Amino acid sequence: MTMLADPSVKYRPFPQIHIPDRQWPSRTITKAPRWLSTDMRDGNQALIDPMDEEKKQRFFDLLCKIGLKEIEVGFPSAGATEFDFISGLVKQGKIPDDVVIQVLTQSRRDLIEKSFESLVGAKQAIVHLYNAVSPAWRRIVFQMSRDEVREIAITGAKLLRDEAAKQPNVDWHFEYSPETFSTAELDFSLEVCEAVMGVLQPTPDRPIIFNLPATVEAATPNIYADQIEYFCRNIPNRDAVVVSLHTHNDRGTGVAAAELGLMAGADRVEGCLLGNGERTGNCDLVTVAMNLYTQGVDPGLDFSDVDEVVKTVEYCTNIPVHPRTPYAGDLVFTAFSGSHQDAIKKGFAAQEQSNSGLWSVPYLPIDPADLGRSYEAVIRVNSQSGKGGVAWVIEQDKGLKLPKRLQADFSRVVQALADEHSRELNAADIWGAFEKQYRLIGQQAYDLVDYHEGRADGDRLFTGTIRHGGKESSVSGRGNGLLSSVVAGLKSGFGIDLDIVDYSEHAIGHGSGAKAAAYVEARTPEGRTLFGVGVDEDVATASVKALLGCANAI
Amino acid sequence: MTMLADPSVKYRPFPQIHIPDRQWPSRTITKAPRWLSTDMRDGNQALIDPMDEEKKQRFFDLLCKIGLKEIEVGFPSAGATEFDFISGLVKQGKIPDDVVIQVLTQSRRDLIEKSFESLVGAKQAIVHLYNAVSPAWRRIVFQMSRDEVREIAITGAKLLRDEAAKQPNVDWHFEYSPETFSTAELDFSLEVCEAVMGVLQPTPDRPIIFNLPATVEAATPNIYADQIEYFCRNIPNRDAVVVSLHTHNDRGTGVAAAELGLMAGADRVEGCLLGNGERTGNCDLVTVAMNLYTQGVDPGLDFSDVDEVVKTVEYCTNIPVHPRTPYAGDLVFTAFSGSHQDAIKKGFAAQEQSNSGLWSVPYLPIDPADLGRSYEAVIRVNSQSGKGGVAWVIEQDKGLKLPKRLQADFSRVVQALADEHSRELNAADIWGAFEKQYRLIGQQAYDLVDYHEGRADGDRLFTGTIRHGGKESSVSGRGNGLLSSVVAGLKSGFGIDLDIVDYSEHAIGHGSGAKAAAYVEARTPEGRTLFGVGVDEDVATASVKALLGCANAI
Repeated sequence: MTMLADPSVKYRPFPQIHIPDRQWPSRTITKAPRWLSTDMRDGNQALIDPMDEEKKQRFFDLLCKIGLKEIEVGFPSAGATEFDFISGLVKQGKIPDDVVIQVLTQSRRDLIEKSFESLVGAKQAIVHLYNAVSPAWRRIVFQMSRDEVREIAITGAKLLRDEAAKQPNVDWHFEYSPETFSTAELDFSLEVCEAVMGVLQPTPDRPIIFNLPATVEAATPNIYADQIEYFCRNIPNRDAVVVSLHTHNDRGTGVAAAELGLMAGADRVEGCLLGNGERTGNCDLVTVAMNLYTQGVDPGLDFSDVDEVVKTVEYCTNIPVHPRTPYAGDLVFTAFSGSHQDAIKKGFAAQEQSNSGLWSVPYLPIDPADLGRSYEAVIRVNSQSGKGGVAWVIEQDKGLKLPKRLQADFSRVVQALADEHSRELNAADIWGAFEKQYRLIGQQAYDLVDYHEGRADGDRLFTGTIRHGGKESSVSGRGNGLLSSVVAGLKSGFGIDLDIVDYSEHAIGHGSGAKAAAYVEARTPEGRTLFGVGVDEDVATASVKALLGCANAI
Repeated sequence: MTMLADPSVKYRPFPQIHIPDRQWPSRTITKAPRWLSTDMRDGNQALIDPMDEEKKQRFFDLLCKIGLKEIEVGFPSAGATEFDFISGLVKQGKIPDDVVIQVLTQSRRDLIEKSFESLVGAKQAIVHLYNAVSPAWRRIVFQMSRDEVREIAITGAKLLRDEAAKQPNVDWHFEYSPETFSTAELDFSLEVCEAVMGVLQPTPDRPIIFNLPATVEAATPNIYADQIEYFCRNIPNRDAVVVSLHTHNDRGTGVAAAELGLMAGADRVEGCLLGNGERTGNCDLVTVAMNLYTQGVDPGLDFSDVDEVVKTVEYCTNIPVHPRTPYAGDLVFTAFSGSHQDAIKKGFAAQEQSNSGLWSVPYLPIDPADLGRSYEAVIRVNSQSGKGGVAWVIEQDKGLKLPKRLQADFSRVVQALADEHSRELNAADIWGAFEKQYRLIGQQAYDLVDYHEGRADGDRLFTGTIRHGGKESSVSGRGNGLLSSVVAGLKSGFGIDLDIVDYSEHAIGHGSGAKAAAYVEARTPEGRTLFGVGVDEDVATASVKALLGCANAI
């Protein structure tokens, strides 16, 4: 493979914006912008299978539920399907009182009239007028001069003003987009917007929305921020203007451009859920909103059940959400690697003990619970995983808190299993391997039938019935504690010689349903290390079972 | 749904970096960085099903073919699979002379020794040492002070130096990562890196690579750029240091952070093809490289067959590439909407006539051909599409350049079909509808069997045999041209009265295999508009067929 062409022949660097005293790089975003969802317009027009009415309604309901207050519902003059849906929303009273719908129109009398017609009976609405202003579009698409292009905008604005006057009961708002803003001359975009202001006469109480689209993303995101800051500084009557951002993702930086644009002074962000939209998509509203959330800023949008959002968007768009999509993808919180799993496990433990309430867990920029995700997805086990991850799964799934050395012992078992299967292991795989390895199921060499404890001269006396080789035997032993008395019993009854190296125990669950788990590490005279695990409703019985588990391991 | 918690209780804004005289916002990227692929390490460890040896080899070969010169091949001390693969690459001479492999290791004697062992016999290699330095990791994961953490790095660097000395025939290079750099104190990262330099003594001829990871993306991308600029300004012996960027995509701005980081002075970018990697992925090398390409900068990486790259990456990672992934996704160049299709069609026409060779087509930031993509995928037709798109498909597929009014006529047919089917229409659907609508197949009311042309007194004489109602009739007519003589013949022979409104014709293809296409728009006395299309090897016959097509439309 060799590159077909020298790129410098065919492409040119995007020119810098002259704004040496730019302020945005020193700013942070401290409050949520106004949001506009364009899922049902820009998003819908980019689908292989556009949404039918049922899907549109479902999407609209989802947007309302999430908390979107401004929703671009379509392009009413584009055809009967669009018109009927929009007009139906209005007529059937399906729009919540605090939600404003927005419709898009080109600057032509018939299309504008049709757009207003679709909104008859609405309480409030935003009519969004656009025409492309960049030199490439002027030359290639319209063959028009600057003056002619500006005239298109003025004509459209006048039609908006006049049509609105015919329906005085509707609370009208206007949005104008100099389409292809990001590749147009800044002075010309300002000139056209000023001309539109001249017609529509916005005030601080009734501002005009100027949407400044990166119709095609053509430069690094700092350039877009420069353009926004330049526009915000130079548009007259800034307080009568809402500056809206509309980025695309052709260079993979649509979210960044929106964020830097907000730092540059914009007030509003247009985009789609999960980055749907033309070509590489619009700005992803989920990501921008949750990015704010992780900085302590309430975005005013509710993604606390992100799985429902994913499900509905996938259903309506017929495009799957990628597993690595920020905040929403399946693998976003997942760690397979041992060192990551270990750090996360420590992080969760530290988080539990923390008093501040501030979130700080390694490798997790946000608490999965804030998106309605369970912790189960965080640590997943394959051949890359270490003891920390495996122990986490056992603890989450069964409540067993394995001691360090038992973790290491079991981790080897799991790694061999993962290598053998060449696939991810689920919690059932891991628990199955654990039960088998530590002999928690099935008939064993030595099974405890029953036992009694007694005391004599400060010592403990153990008397137990143990099934071995098909028959029950009674064994007894004496020691300074329960376990040593069982060790003595095993030695006298079966000749088993065990030295207890480590022992630990903890409760599983709370209250009357709680159980006890016990872990014994023992050594044989030959130096072999054995692990035994016992679970029982009774603390003492759990210990005896764990010790017997070591005997069974021989 | 309501947000579970007030985010300000749980999360804090990321602190600003104090660098008021930052330079990066005024810079552009004018040359390609050094690239490191970490697909086989960071990418592989984030897979549900890690790559087996065959997949690893295939991925390695792809990376070499694309032009990667630095490839992180794994973590040799992590297990036998990793070790054997890396050692196998070296021993079997599978590494091209101009490619340097890199291996990752933690700072422990046994792991470092194992890493060097895997490289025995290599011509050259980079050993990459890392330890996390941020306060959260120091507190939660290591429970260590700053001094202790710095000591880990120093100890590791000494081991690197000493192990390298034992294999003097290998051309050794070193990379050190203060892991979690982006969430650590800048002065501490600098302190640790300086300490490592003290041990390894880099020079401008033999520089050390300092990789500055955003292990978890935790702030807007401008903050990362500030951190990089600060580091570049304050690291001593800057010319003995290669500053490498390693971003992740938790906030959806991994590509932006890498780009702004390059503007801030970095020399090298680490990432994965198509944004694979832990959680939300690493920086997408395809996007960053092609972003440079569209600015006229040769990235030094070859994605001129992006479909092959997609195919191999999907096979090896078992994760599908999303249709909206920049440059590589299926829908990246696709326009469904009528106005977009129209603009693109005009853009292609203008591009053909342009002398400059500079790329300028509306809605297409890059020529799809530069990625090995055909133009077929650019314009796709569903119910959102207009006449421009449909005409484009017919032209691409069959070579027919439909006149404007015929486009509009046929567009209504296609829209009705798309609405009826509720799905995207492919080229075959569209051509099928065209053949049916304009009667190019099957038996028609009037079928041309044969005809002759003659001349008399400057007029044209048409004598034709036409099959109608199951029998052949001979008709003749006279006019000032071929078409008017056929019109006269149809009127005298069958009583058909047609008025020709428009006529056009063009060649399909070149040379001896060329055909002719003719289009006739006619009107009946009742004012009905009819379109006829004729295709034939003979120019004149095509016209006659087109006219007959109008008759058949009655």
